[in-house]
Amino acid sequence: MAVGLGLIGTGFMGKAHALAYSHARPVFGNLPSVRLACLCDTPRERADAFADQFGFERATDDWRDLVASPDVDIVSITTPNALHCEMALAAIEAGKHVHCEKPLALTLEDARRMAEAAERAGVVTLVGYNYVHNPAFQHACRLIETGVIGKPVHFRGWVDEDYQADPDLAWTWRARKADAGLGALGDLGCHLVSMATALMGPIESLIADTQIIHETRRLGEGDGRAAVENEDTASAILRFSNGAQGSLCTSRSAWGRKNKLDWEVHGTKGMIAFSQERLNELQLYVNEGDRGRQGFRTILTGPDHQPYAAFCPAPGHQLGFNDLKTIEAARMLEAISGKDTAHPNFADALAFEAVIHAIDESARSGRRVVLDQLKRNPS
Amino acid sequence: MAVGLGLIGTGFMGKAHALAYSHARPVFGNLPSVRLACLCDTPRERADAFADQFGFERATDDWRDLVASPDVDIVSITTPNALHCEMALAAIEAGKHVHCEKPLALTLEDARRMAEAAERAGVVTLVGYNYVHNPAFQHACRLIETGVIGKPVHFRGWVDEDYQADPDLAWTWRARKADAGLGALGDLGCHLVSMATALMGPIESLIADTQIIHETRRLGEGDGRAAVENEDTASAILRFSNGAQGSLCTSRSAWGRKNKLDWEVHGTKGMIAFSQERLNELQLYVNEGDRGRQGFRTILTGPDHQPYAAFCPAPGHQLGFNDLKTIEAARMLEAISGKDTAHPNFADALAFEAVIHAIDESARSGRRVVLDQLKRNPS
Amino acid sequence: MAVGLGLIGTGFMGKAHALAYSHARPVFGNLPSVRLACLCDTPRERADAFADQFGFERATDDWRDLVASPDVDIVSITTPNALHCEMALAAIEAGKHVHCEKPLALTLEDARRMAEAAERAGVVTLVGYNYVHNPAFQHACRLIETGVIGKPVHFRGWVDEDYQADPDLAWTWRARKADAGLGALGDLGCHLVSMATALMGPIESLIADTQIIHETRRLGEGDGRAAVENEDTASAILRFSNGAQGSLCTSRSAWGRKNKLDWEVHGTKGMIAFSQERLNELQLYVNEGDRGRQGFRTILTGPDHQPYAAFCPAPGHQLGFNDLKTIEAARMLEAISGKDTAHPNFADALAFEAVIHAIDESARSGRRVVLDQLKRNPS
Amino acid sequence: MAVGLGLIGTGFMGKAHALAYSHARPVFGNLPSVRLACLCDTPRERADAFADQFGFERATDDWRDLVASPDVDIVSITTPNALHCEMALAAIEAGKHVHCEKPLALTLEDARRMAEAAERAGVVTLVGYNYVHNPAFQHACRLIETGVIGKPVHFRGWVDEDYQADPDLAWTWRARKADAGLGALGDLGCHLVSMATALMGPIESLIADTQIIHETRRLGEGDGRAAVENEDTASAILRFSNGAQGSLCTSRSAWGRKNKLDWEVHGTKGMIAFSQERLNELQLYVNEGDRGRQGFRTILTGPDHQPYAAFCPAPGHQLGFNDLKTIEAARMLEAISGKDTAHPNFADALAFEAVIHAIDESARSGRRVVLDQLKRNPS
Repeated sequence: MAVGLGLIGTGFMGKAHALAYSHARPVFGNLPSVRLACLCDTPRERADAFADQFGFERATDDWRDLVASPDVDIVSITTPNALHCEMALAAIEAGKHVHCEKPLALTLEDARRMAEAAERAGVVTLVGYNYVHNPAFQHACRLIETGVIGKPVHFRGWVDEDYQADPDLAWTWRARKADAGLGALGDLGCHLVSMATALMGPIESLIADTQIIHETRRLGEGDGRAAVENEDTASAILRFSNGAQGSLCTSRSAWGRKNKLDWEVHGTKGMIAFSQERLNELQLYVNEGDRGRQGFRTILTGPDHQPYAAFCPAPGHQLGFNDLKTIEAARMLEAISGKDTAHPNFADALAFEAVIHAIDESARSGRRVVLDQLKRNPS
Repeated sequence: MAVGLGLIGTGFMGKAHALAYSHARPVFGNLPSVRLACLCDTPRERADAFADQFGFERATDDWRDLVASPDVDIVSITTPNALHCEMALAAIEAGKHVHCEKPLALTLEDARRMAEAAERAGVVTLVGYNYVHNPAFQHACRLIETGVIGKPVHFRGWVDEDYQADPDLAWTWRARKADAGLGALGDLGCHLVSMATALMGPIESLIADTQIIHETRRLGEGDGRAAVENEDTASAILRFSNGAQGSLCTSRSAWGRKNKLDWEVHGTKGMIAFSQERLNELQLYVNEGDRGRQGFRTILTGPDHQPYAAFCPAPGHQLGFNDLKTIEAARMLEAISGKDTAHPNFADALAFEAVIHAIDESARSGRRVVLDQLKRNPS
Repeated sequence: MAVGLGLIGTGFMGKAHALAYSHARPVFGNLPSVRLACLCDTPRERADAFADQFGFERATDDWRDLVASPDVDIVSITTPNALHCEMALAAIEAGKHVHCEKPLALTLEDARRMAEAAERAGVVTLVGYNYVHNPAFQHACRLIETGVIGKPVHFRGWVDEDYQADPDLAWTWRARKADAGLGALGDLGCHLVSMATALMGPIESLIADTQIIHETRRLGEGDGRAAVENEDTASAILRFSNGAQGSLCTSRSAWGRKNKLDWEVHGTKGMIAFSQERLNELQLYVNEGDRGRQGFRTILTGPDHQPYAAFCPAPGHQLGFNDLKTIEAARMLEAISGKDTAHPNFADALAFEAVIHAIDESARSGRRVVLDQLKRNPS
Repeated sequence: MAVGLGLIGTGFMGKAHALAYSHARPVFGNLPSVRLACLCDTPRERADAFADQFGFERATDDWRDLVASPDVDIVSITTPNALHCEMALAAIEAGKHVHCEKPLALTLEDARRMAEAAERAGVVTLVGYNYVHNPAFQHACRLIETGVIGKPVHFRGWVDEDYQADPDLAWTWRARKADAGLGALGDLGCHLVSMATALMGPIESLIADTQIIHETRRLGEGDGRAAVENEDTASAILRFSNGAQGSLCTSRSAWGRKNKLDWEVHGTKGMIAFSQERLNELQLYVNEGDRGRQGFRTILTGPDHQPYAAFCPAPGHQLGFNDLKTIEAARMLEAISGKDTAHPNFADALAFEAVIHAIDESARSGRRVVLDQLKRNPS
C-alpha cells in the first residue's frame, strides 16, 4: 500500500520535497511506494499548476483540508517558518507523520510544543536538516566513531551566505523578529548546530555575541527606512558535554559565500574538515605512517560512502543538493515502514534550536548560557 | 498527451535515464508529461523488479517488443555498447525517437549507419554526452561566444579514471576489441571530444599515440592470463578548424582520478578552466582591470547559470551527476515537442567518435590523420 | 657607514635574523650596508661555529658584552621569550636599536616596561611579527584602505599548528607558565592579533574561552607525569573600535596544520581571505560586474604587489618565509636611516600582546574584557 | 680558502645568483666560504652599482677580464642566452668551474660544444634548472625510486606563463630565432624536460606540434609590424626509455599562468602530482588501506623533506624561488669541494635541450624524432 504525501508549499523547499519523494523509491528500491496525494498552496491556481508539474493527484488551497485528508499519511510542511507550528500541531493531532522544514518554529516555546505533541502522539517526525544526510558527512561521523582521528577535542564551524550582504537591498519581512524570528542563526546557524551535534555530541554551554551590520534598510519608494531587528552575524564559543571546546560563526552578509557550511573536528590522532560548497569531498589528516608522507587527503565521495551507490555506482560523479533531500525523504519512508527511526526528529531539532536561542540570549545578556534542555531531550 | 518512454537496460545508465525522465517535467515544468511505459532487461525478473522500483507501467525481456510497442515514443538505449547499433536501427525503423548512450557504436561504420538512418527517418535523436549539459559548461560556452576571453587559440583536455589502474584486476570483456571496441578513448575520451568541439569548434586533424599499460590480465583460477587488446591511455595533439591547436589525453589507469574530465581554453584575452570532479565550479581569468587584482576566479554555479535555477533557486547548493542527466532528458522532451533540436544528436556523436577512431588510427599508423568526415557531417 | 648588527641567539629565529640582515641590502639596494658585527650564544663553541657559518665578525657567550659593544648598532634578540625583557632593557639603556622576537615578554607588565623604556630612550624598535610584511598581506591592507571591499564589518581568524597535538609528547618547559607564559596564544595567537589589527584597526573588547587538551604530559623514564599549565587552544569573540565584530581561534594541537594563519575580512562590498600556508596567494571577492562571472579570485603575488619585485621580477615565482624576514630587516634598516618608522614596534607589540592576555583573563573570569590600554598606546 | 665567484649579469638571474651564493654557506654550514670576487655587466656604472649592492669586491664591464681573473673560481653566466656559449667556452678554457643559466645555448650544436669542452677540461659545471632542487621535487623523486607509487607508467607535464599572451605587446628580440632561438620551448619547456627526466628517466622518441599564436607584433611608432619567428606553444607526445608514454605542453601565451610548471606521474600503485605555483606542496595518491579513506593527500614541505630544514626547522613555513637557487649554489659548492657531483651539469642539460630541439624538429617535419643523443650522453 503506497504512502500518501501531502505537501504544503511550492517554493524552494516545496519543490525540493516533491522531487525528493518522487525519487526516493526509484533510487533506493527497498522503500514503500509513494503517492503524491495532495499539494497545497495559495492561490489555488498556483497549487493547481504545481500539482500538475510535480505529478500530485490533486491540489488545494486549504492546508487544513490536506491535513485532514485520509489519503495523506505524511504531511510535509515547507511554508514560511512562522506557519510551521500551527500546521504541525494540526497534522499531529490528525495522526499524521510530519516532515517539517527547519527551523521548527520562531520561538523555542513553539518548538517545544511541537516536540511534545509529536512525542505524545507517537507519530514519526523529521526535520529538514538535510546536510547531515550527505554521504560525506555520514562518513565523517563514522570515522570519528571508529576512532580514526582519536578522541574529538575541538570543533570549529562556519555557515555563511551573502543574501543579506548588499547594503542596498530593500527591507523585507526577514528583518522583523515577529515574522522571521532569529536572523542568520535561524536560517543558517541551526544547520551547523545539527552537524556539530552529530559530530561532537551535545553542546553544554556557550558564550556568544551577535551583530547587526545593516541597521536599517530602505522601504519602498519614498517610504524611508526601517530597522533590521535580527542578527546579520553571530559568533559563539562552545563547550560540549564531552569536554571539548569549539566555536561557531554564522553570517548572512558574507560576500561571496553561497552555501558555506564548513567545519573541522580536531582529534587527538587527526583532523577532519568539510566544506559544503564542495559537498562531495572530505579532508582527512591522520598522524600515522611515514611523517614525510602525511598530509590532508581529499576523499572524493563514492560507493564506499553509503548511500552514494544508490545514486551512482561510479565514484567521483557527484551528488547534488536535491540528492541529499532524496536521502532525507528515504529516511522518513524507512521510519514509517518501521525499518528505522528518523533523525533529526522534532526532539532532535528542539535541541538544535535551543542552541541558537541560547546564542541569542548570551549575546543579549553578556553571560554564559547553560543548555539544560539538552539533558531533558536527548537525541 | 504524455510521451511514452521505453527504456532498455537497468544498469548504471539505465537507472540514470529512469531517474532523469521522471524528474524532467517536475524540475522544468514546461515540458510534456512522461509516461514510463516499458522497461526491458534480461532476465525478466530483473526487468520486473526494476520496473516496479522505477515506476514503469510494464516490463519485458524482449527489446524488439519494446521497440515495436505503440505506447513507446522514445527508446532509451543503455545496453552494452556492442548492442547499440542493432537496437537503434530497429527503433528508428519503427519510427521511434532514440536516446542512446555513448559511444554510439564500437566502429565508426556502425555509428555512420546509425546517423544516416536517423537522418533519413527524421526522428529525434540524442546521445548521452551528458557533461555538455552542465550549467557551468554551458556558461563557459557562452563566455567564449561572447568574447569574454577573446579568440580561443589553444585547448587542453584530460579525462582520466582509475577503474583499470590496478595490475591485479581480472581480465574482462572490456579488454577485447571485438566486444568493447576502443579502450579509454571509447569510455572516456569521447566525452572530452564532445566538450572540446562545443568549446572550440571541430577538430581538423591530429597526431596521436596510445599505450597499453597492463598488457595481460589474469583469467579465472588456474586459467592463466589473456591479452588486453585496447588502449589504457591515449594522447593526441589537435589542430582545430579555427586555427587553434591543443591536446587531449585520456587514461583508464590513472590512480586517484575518479571522474577527471578537465579542460582549459586559452584565449587572447583570458582563460577558462574546468574540472569535472568539481562540476559546479568554473575558473575564469580575464586580462582586465587593475593588474594587481587579476587572478583566476572560481565561479560557483547558481541561478545566473541556466538551467541551474530549475533545480534550486539558491546559488552554491550544487547539482549532481543525475541532475545533468535530467537536463539531457529535458532536451530530448523539448525536441520532441518541437521547441528545439536536441544535441548532441547522432550526427554530432558521429563526428565526436570519428575523432577517437582517428586517434587510434594515427597511433597505429604514426601519421597525421585528417578528419574530413567532420566536414560532411557538421553539427 | 655600515650598521653593526649584534645578534643574540642562533636557533630558528637567530638563523632567520642572520639570513635576513645579510640579504636586506642585496635585495633592496637603497639601504645602509650591514656589518654582521657580533653573534652571541652559549656555549661559546656554538657561538663561534655559527658566527663562522653566518659570517659574523666575532662571537661571544656574554650577551651583556654584545649589548655594550660600540660596533653594535642594532641588537637582535631571538632568545627564549623569558629572556627578552632583561636583554631588551639593557640594550635600550645602552642606546641600541632593538629588534626583538615576538612575543615581547611573558607578562604584559614586562612588555609595558619594554615599550616605555624604548619610548623614553627614543631608540628604534621592531618586533618579529614578520607575517605582516608579506606583500600579499600588505596588498590586502591596501585593498581595504582604498575601499575595494567597502567598509570592513566582520573578521575571522585562525592560527593553528600541531606541535603539541601528539598526546605522547613529553612534558617540556613550554607547558610551565613561569617559563613559557601563555601557550598557543603566546606562540601563535599574537601573530593573528598583529594581522587583525592591521586589517581592522584596534580591538576594543572581547569574550573568550581557553582549553587545555592534554592536561598532563609524561616526564622522563619513571618520573610520572607533570601538569600542562597553559592553554592548548583559545577562542575569542572580538569587538573592534570601528564597530566590527569578529572571532579569533588558535590551537597548538591541531593535527595537520603546520603554519595555518588564516583570516578573512568581510566588507560591505566584498571579502578578502588569506591562508599563510599559501602565503603567495590572496582571495578576493568583489560584488561588481556581471553576477554570473563573480567569484573569489586567487591573486598570485607578483611585482604588482610591493615589495615582491625586489626579490624577483617575474610574478608567481613565490616568496618564502625567510624572505618575509628579509623585508622585516629592511624595515628596521630604513627606520634607522630615518627614511621611515618601523612597525610593529614595541608600542604596537604591547597592544597586540594586551589582546592575548585579555583573552586569557576573560577565559579565567568568564567576563568581557575591555582593552583600554589600546587607547593609551595607539599604533 | 674561500671560493671566488665571478658573476656575469645583473638581471633577474644575476641577482638570483648573487643572493644564492651569499646565502649558501649561512644556510647549509658545511660548505666552503664564498668570496663575491667580481661582478660584470655593462655599462660599467651598472656593474659598479650592483657590485656595491650585492657585496662584490670589485666590478668590471669586461667579461673576459672576469673569466681570466685568478681570484675567480666559479664563473656564473646569467647573460642573454645567445651569449652563453662564447662565455662558457672561454671560462672552461681558463680552467674555471662554470655555473650557467638555462638553456645552455640557442642551438643544439653550441650546447654540444659546451658539454664536450667541459668534459675535456674536467671542470665542474652546473646549469640553472633550479626547480629540480626543490625539496618537494626531490621528495617526489625519492617516492618514485622507493616504489611508493609502483612502476611509473605515464607522465603529463605543462609549463605555461603569460608573458607573451597579450596581442598588443610590442615585438622584441625574443621573437627572432637568430637572437632568441626557440620560443616557449627554450624559455619554459626545457625546465619541464629536466623534471620529466629526473622523474621518468630519458625520453626516447616523440611526436610534436607547435603554434605561433600571434604571427606578427607591432614595432615602434609608425614602423608597422614584424613577424614572430618562434613558437608560442608546443605540444609533444613522449615515449620514455622505460616504456612509459606521456605528454608535454608549453605556452608563453597562457593568460593567468604566472609560473605554471606542473606535472603528474602515473604509477601502477599510485600517482604524484605537483604544481610549481604551489611549490611547497606535493599531491600523493596511493592505492593502499581502506578504500573509503583513499584520496590525494597534500604533503606540505617541511624538515622531513631535505634540505628544507636548513632553511627553517618548522614545517609549512614555505620556501621561495630564491631558496631553490640557494640550494643550486650549494650543490655547486659541494661539487667543487669534492663532496658530490653537481647536476644538472652541461651533459645533462645537453640531453634536456636535445628534447626541445627534437620537438621543434618533429613539429616542422611531421615525423617521429628519436633521441639517440640521449644514449650517447647519459646523465
